[in-house]
Amino acid sequence: STASSSGEEHHLYDEELIPPGNFTMVSTWIYRSSFPKKKNFPFLKKLGLKSILTLILEEYPEQNMKFLKANNIKLFQFGIAGNKEPFVQIPEDIICAALARNHPILIHCNKGKHRTGCLVGCLRKLQRWTHTSIFDEYRRFSCPKSRSMDQQFIELFDASQVWKLVDRDHLPKWEELDIPW
Amino acid sequence: STASSSGEEHHLYDEELIPPGNFTMVSTWIYRSSFPKKKNFPFLKKLGLKSILTLILEEYPEQNMKFLKANNIKLFQFGIAGNKEPFVQIPEDIICAALARNHPILIHCNKGKHRTGCLVGCLRKLQRWTHTSIFDEYRRFSCPKSRSMDQQFIELFDASQVWKLVDRDHLPKWEELDIPW
Repeated sequence: STASSSGEEHHLYDEELIPPGNFTMVSTWIYRSSFPKKKNFPFLKKLGLKSILTLILEEYPEQNMKFLKANNIKLFQFGIAGNKEPFVQIPEDIICAALARNHPILIHCNKGKHRTGCLVGCLRKLQRWTHTSIFDEYRRFSCPKSRSMDQQFIELFDASQVWKLVDRDHLPKWEELDIPW
Repeated sequence: STASSSGEEHHLYDEELIPPGNFTMVSTWIYRSSFPKKKNFPFLKKLGLKSILTLILEEYPEQNMKFLKANNIKLFQFGIAGNKEPFVQIPEDIICAALARNHPILIHCNKGKHRTGCLVGCLRKLQRWTHTSIFDEYRRFSCPKSRSMDQQFIELFDASQVWKLVDRDHLPKWEELDIPW
């Protein structure tokens, strides 16, 4: 390890980075993962996040709040119970928050499987993926605990409702995004 | 469906897009998938690919060659046998091709599990992910056919050899990339 000898921030070039569990890039500037712990902070710092959207019901832990503050990251909380009940409707304004102005954004719940998987599934509908492809991806992250109710929720989600609310001037420049207007 | 009435290209806004199996974004401008078939071409077109890196040994099919030509996509072929033998060394210049100048790039083999998984694992080492995180990702895509030999190959891969060859002026602007110089 080599640390800079000046007063600047340390750069340990051979230090390994630890992404949170179930981490991946969903699309440009959208990431998903399980709940980020302290050991994941150096990795998350590199993503240059502008916001985090958490789907947990519980209060956000103090060490995470400190990390957000130190790195000027905005927190959106849309708490959903993490049990096996049918997934409630995700308000379209939450989808809009995830879509506009707040990128790069990290979406997470506890395990990064079900709640995050449902939200990502809704985003994929905006990208016009087939249900087969969406469910394949959902199951890749929730395996072996995939839930039919979640996949049904994704299938019933009406993407056209989002387009009515979305801030058209601040959409991500996704090549996959086809906007129906 | 609504098609434009002019002679321009059709835009079917409610047409669904079909990503190839095991498709995902690896990092900005790097995608991975299984072998792209004709039904996947409308989806791939949206990615604005500059190149495709195929890891299959077989000759690239004619309909795929046509798609590449029509969309001005460069083809890199680094054929590797898709059997269960220990994975051979990936030449560092292949890694370099995947890293520089040719983005957005799609990396694929047949199933998008083992060969692609090994190459992506090597890219993750350049991004300094821990082996635990790299293997989690490898297994997510190869499940339930994950191979120990592949994971061993990734572990033994020496990322420092890549940095010697890489074109430093044309590296992707990955936030996660820490270059040791």
